[in-house]
Amino acid sequence: MRIAVTDGIDPNAKSSLESLGHSVIERHYSNDELISGCISDFDIVIIRSATKLNSNIIKANAGINGKLSLIIRAGVGVDNIDLSSASDYSISVCNTPNASTNAVVELTIGHLISSCRNIARGDQKMKDGSWAKKELRGSELRGKNLGLLGYGRIARGVADVARSMGMNIHAYDPYVNSNNSKCIFHDSVESLFRSCTHVSIHCFLSDETKHLVDLRMISFMPKKDNNGIECGNHIVNCARGGIINESDLHDALESGVLSTASLDVFEIEPAIKSSLLQLDGFQATPHIGASTYEAQRRIGEEIIGIVESHSKGIVPLTCLNK
Amino acid sequence: MRIAVTDGIDPNAKSSLESLGHSVIERHYSNDELISGCISDFDIVIIRSATKLNSNIIKANAGINGKLSLIIRAGVGVDNIDLSSASDYSISVCNTPNASTNAVVELTIGHLISSCRNIARGDQKMKDGSWAKKELRGSELRGKNLGLLGYGRIARGVADVARSMGMNIHAYDPYVNSNNSKCIFHDSVESLFRSCTHVSIHCFLSDETKHLVDLRMISFMPKKDNNGIECGNHIVNCARGGIINESDLHDALESGVLSTASLDVFEIEPAIKSSLLQLDGFQATPHIGASTYEAQRRIGEEIIGIVESHSKGIVPLTCLNK
Repeated sequence: MRIAVTDGIDPNAKSSLESLGHSVIERHYSNDELISGCISDFDIVIIRSATKLNSNIIKANAGINGKLSLIIRAGVGVDNIDLSSASDYSISVCNTPNASTNAVVELTIGHLISSCRNIARGDQKMKDGSWAKKELRGSELRGKNLGLLGYGRIARGVADVARSMGMNIHAYDPYVNSNNSKCIFHDSVESLFRSCTHVSIHCFLSDETKHLVDLRMISFMPKKDNNGIECGNHIVNCARGGIINESDLHDALESGVLSTASLDVFEIEPAIKSSLLQLDGFQATPHIGASTYEAQRRIGEEIIGIVESHSKGIVPLTCLNK
Repeated sequence: MRIAVTDGIDPNAKSSLESLGHSVIERHYSNDELISGCISDFDIVIIRSATKLNSNIIKANAGINGKLSLIIRAGVGVDNIDLSSASDYSISVCNTPNASTNAVVELTIGHLISSCRNIARGDQKMKDGSWAKKELRGSELRGKNLGLLGYGRIARGVADVARSMGMNIHAYDPYVNSNNSKCIFHDSVESLFRSCTHVSIHCFLSDETKHLVDLRMISFMPKKDNNGIECGNHIVNCARGGIINESDLHDALESGVLSTASLDVFEIEPAIKSSLLQLDGFQATPHIGASTYEAQRRIGEEIIGIVESHSKGIVPLTCLNK
């Protein structure tokens, strides 16, 4: 099969696909090129988050205009793909949901500790020549209430590690059966925020979740832990930009309602002009949740499995519109 | 009793001591002042790491020269106190070993993740206006071998969290009985380093441990994990400066033998002129291992217990020279 790779791929996966007899062209295409049908003579396109496949682009490369029959999202979120258009043109859309789970779990825990203990801030102060020990007093995670907004694979992984650190796990997820869970389930987002000094976001971006975390919600957070220690309020988002209203987040940090916010994802990426970057309690990474050698290798392995299934006429396990 | 507090104390602990009838003077003294016997009319001195109580200072403030009878180290390491001189003058020396354990455990895990996932580095790049996603690929901790040099309270806490993250725990500690331990014990430091891509230091500074971690030892580290992934070598030290030879550490980072090093403690503090701070894989915090609201409160509680025991003529539980 002819495979277009538009946002990069693990070199091992590329050579494996080629050794299986597929032709792999690795190149990034502009929006204009995509709309003009530049991938219409490929059977499969493999994208990450940079390539946006809206309905016009799908129309231009499938159906009577082209032979595209499979879109693989190397990663999890498919908000950059118009799923219903893909279905209209009988294009299967698959993602690689398992490959990056652990990478995001570890980054989330890292962001939580780094922000509450001033690791990034302390590092920068030292590199600026200042031994700021006295102003870098932080707070511990042990004994604190961690609220997970969304309770899928990644959230459960975060819960396991956070529990081993002595945190109390709370969650809100209307799509998950809360029976037999080791965490405290809430029946509203407001109830979750009222209970937790620490919140980590693990849901998809959708109309339902867009700007779900705003100043009103953040203002419900209690600032004090169960022992009366003023640990402040802390939010981490390694899921998807847009779930937090960033303008509200700015106000919450500036006014002290929120002590720290750590984002790996942003409403607009690359987010190098965000006014959040000027604020003391703000910590950021450039959407590197899945950027590990291990996750890229696992994504490559999942892609090979998807291509092999599709080649044999079998619907891949991770197909989202079968 | 008259109590001198030379390096600060939790305000709650100070007021509790005063309400118990003690007189608390909080003031930092210079070396010259200490040698001239300025705390000789105190019964108790409470210090952290900044005050150094060598044999001359102890002699000038105890015995026939003064009434000092108890030194409390608010914290763990007592390498700034001449223990044998204190014993010569019948001064009890106590520390607060339990109070900061969890704070250091969490910082260690935070440093491990932050360095392997480029959190501090990514944060700084974003604040410098660069979306460096592509150059910030990191490696995961899951499945890696973590070597703990020293296996006391803090190391065991680190082991529990690291195990929950899927790390394999290795340890070297000649003073710990390795029976029934859930980790793999080594009979030499070299064997530990040969087995582990990640090493975290959790021993005291002594003649035995000074510069125990040098270029030769670091060179034994395998750079690849059990699955052949080139994750590089990583070292964290939140214990005490001087256990790592910092000049060797510089060479190991510069030459690529070591991928990252994260230090909270240094041979000379404040360490704002260290040449390590110029290196890409180097991450630092200014000795904030115990700097949490929770640890400071627990240290205060432990201090009150020590003072109360001593006042009643009972040897405190954490006395190091009874």
